[in-house]
Amino acid sequence: MGRGAAYSPAGLTGIFSTHIVPGDPLATGARGAGLALRAGVRAVAETTEEGIEVLLNGEPGEWRVAATAARLVAGAAGYDGGLRVEQVVEPPIGGGLGTSGASAMATALAVAEALGARLSYTRLAELAHRAELLCGTGLGTVSGLAVGGPVMVLEPGAPGRDRVDRFLAPVDVEVVVGFYSPVDKRSVIGGGGLEAVDRVGDRALRRLVERPGLDEFMRLSRWFAYETGLARGRVREAIELLLRRGYEASMAMIGETVFAVAGAGEAGGAVDILESTGARVLVTRISWEPAHPV
Amino acid sequence: MGRGAAYSPAGLTGIFSTHIVPGDPLATGARGAGLALRAGVRAVAETTEEGIEVLLNGEPGEWRVAATAARLVAGAAGYDGGLRVEQVVEPPIGGGLGTSGASAMATALAVAEALGARLSYTRLAELAHRAELLCGTGLGTVSGLAVGGPVMVLEPGAPGRDRVDRFLAPVDVEVVVGFYSPVDKRSVIGGGGLEAVDRVGDRALRRLVERPGLDEFMRLSRWFAYETGLARGRVREAIELLLRRGYEASMAMIGETVFAVAGAGEAGGAVDILESTGARVLVTRISWEPAHPV
Repeated sequence: MGRGAAYSPAGLTGIFSTHIVPGDPLATGARGAGLALRAGVRAVAETTEEGIEVLLNGEPGEWRVAATAARLVAGAAGYDGGLRVEQVVEPPIGGGLGTSGASAMATALAVAEALGARLSYTRLAELAHRAELLCGTGLGTVSGLAVGGPVMVLEPGAPGRDRVDRFLAPVDVEVVVGFYSPVDKRSVIGGGGLEAVDRVGDRALRRLVERPGLDEFMRLSRWFAYETGLARGRVREAIELLLRRGYEASMAMIGETVFAVAGAGEAGGAVDILESTGARVLVTRISWEPAHPV
Repeated sequence: MGRGAAYSPAGLTGIFSTHIVPGDPLATGARGAGLALRAGVRAVAETTEEGIEVLLNGEPGEWRVAATAARLVAGAAGYDGGLRVEQVVEPPIGGGLGTSGASAMATALAVAEALGARLSYTRLAELAHRAELLCGTGLGTVSGLAVGGPVMVLEPGAPGRDRVDRFLAPVDVEVVVGFYSPVDKRSVIGGGGLEAVDRVGDRALRRLVERPGLDEFMRLSRWFAYETGLARGRVREAIELLLRRGYEASMAMIGETVFAVAGAGEAGGAVDILESTGARVLVTRISWEPAHPV
């Protein structure tokens, strides 16, 4: 009877471009930039007699990406018994906060530990990446969560094939997230018309690489959100309210979700603004810890 | 007047092979495996009128690798004023615990923040790597400290050119380090006769890649230390004492230093053994946090 536990930061994406290579999950991914967040996902895995059972925040859940990650790791480890995976997901789900990628990553690490699997970290991250692709929940999120910090995914693909760097950010920055309602990412990613988004995303990322820093990331994220037309409705209105009050803000991709950054102890005003617009608000910080066993 | 602060884990190396390409610091480095440690180096950098001043644990120190890292980052940022860098180094210096690499890395990050430099994390790690080479203090340490965790450096070179993966280890493992006296690494690295060491190191790393895990890392580290003859005298005697008491143990490369791992709360016996042999003892854990601003 094996047991393992792991944590993954969640992660918000400010800039992205998609790179889909049909039939090649190792080459498929995304470029972009975002922030790994301390608020995240914890997974506890235990071996059982048979079947894969997933609990989400205490309830039996349709959490397909976790079940898929568990199945892929079991397969790679040559294990054909059962698994029970309990997940505690702190951020809102479906809000562009990388909870699917974080769940896949935390599950992969916890299951590997439960099975005593001889698989490297990068191999487990690759399996989490595959789980995201199979479930259509994300493209390049796992690349960032396996590194942590304020990340730039410079080359797309599965962990081990990608290339990731970081920009610097003051460590005491508070990240304020305002979430309205879940979005089905497939309706955006799968809907075609992505060429224009990809062009704008690659251009924003190139500029960030030239001048890496949190302020540039925030400005370029907003330029990306506006230029692509992805920020609209109450997301755009909330961003404007935040800007008028002096907060740098943009949209978390791809969710009906706004994020702002504030100096230590200065998040209060942004929280008030977002709550006044009806958002569910989460205050967290950048996580320099990648996903890891706990 | 700018100010920045950063932390780097220290790191112990259990297995290594050297890869020295004369005249090419980006290609020069090491392969190997080790553990990033929570005990580490904190650096605070401030801009001054002129010159580079380094304080080590409160005293003006001959800490050339930190001064060199500060100079390289200032150069890359186009800054020609002065800098004052205060360092607090927790582990013993000169004991194969990566304090030079950690100092270079923490200094590079702190100076970049003090200057508001637009340099990416990987670029700063590359400059820290160069500082280590210029001072002859290390080869592949920075590659691991920029990633964190239980690391395998699969391909040598500066960060951005290297390739790093991790093996898994239970997060509550206690790492017990026993340090005897400082060793001048150059007397070992520069002394020739490294071909046999490199052959054994590459072989041990290949085996670890096949079966990545903490237990294999410990066994292969000891095989490496014995097979190369690097473990001798009181280092080898202490390892034997620890093994007889059921602790997995090996030698931190390259220092007159022994390390052992123990389950949570089980480090006491290893501490007693190492203290009885006259070692300075440090108990710490694996750091999954890479070097980062604080």
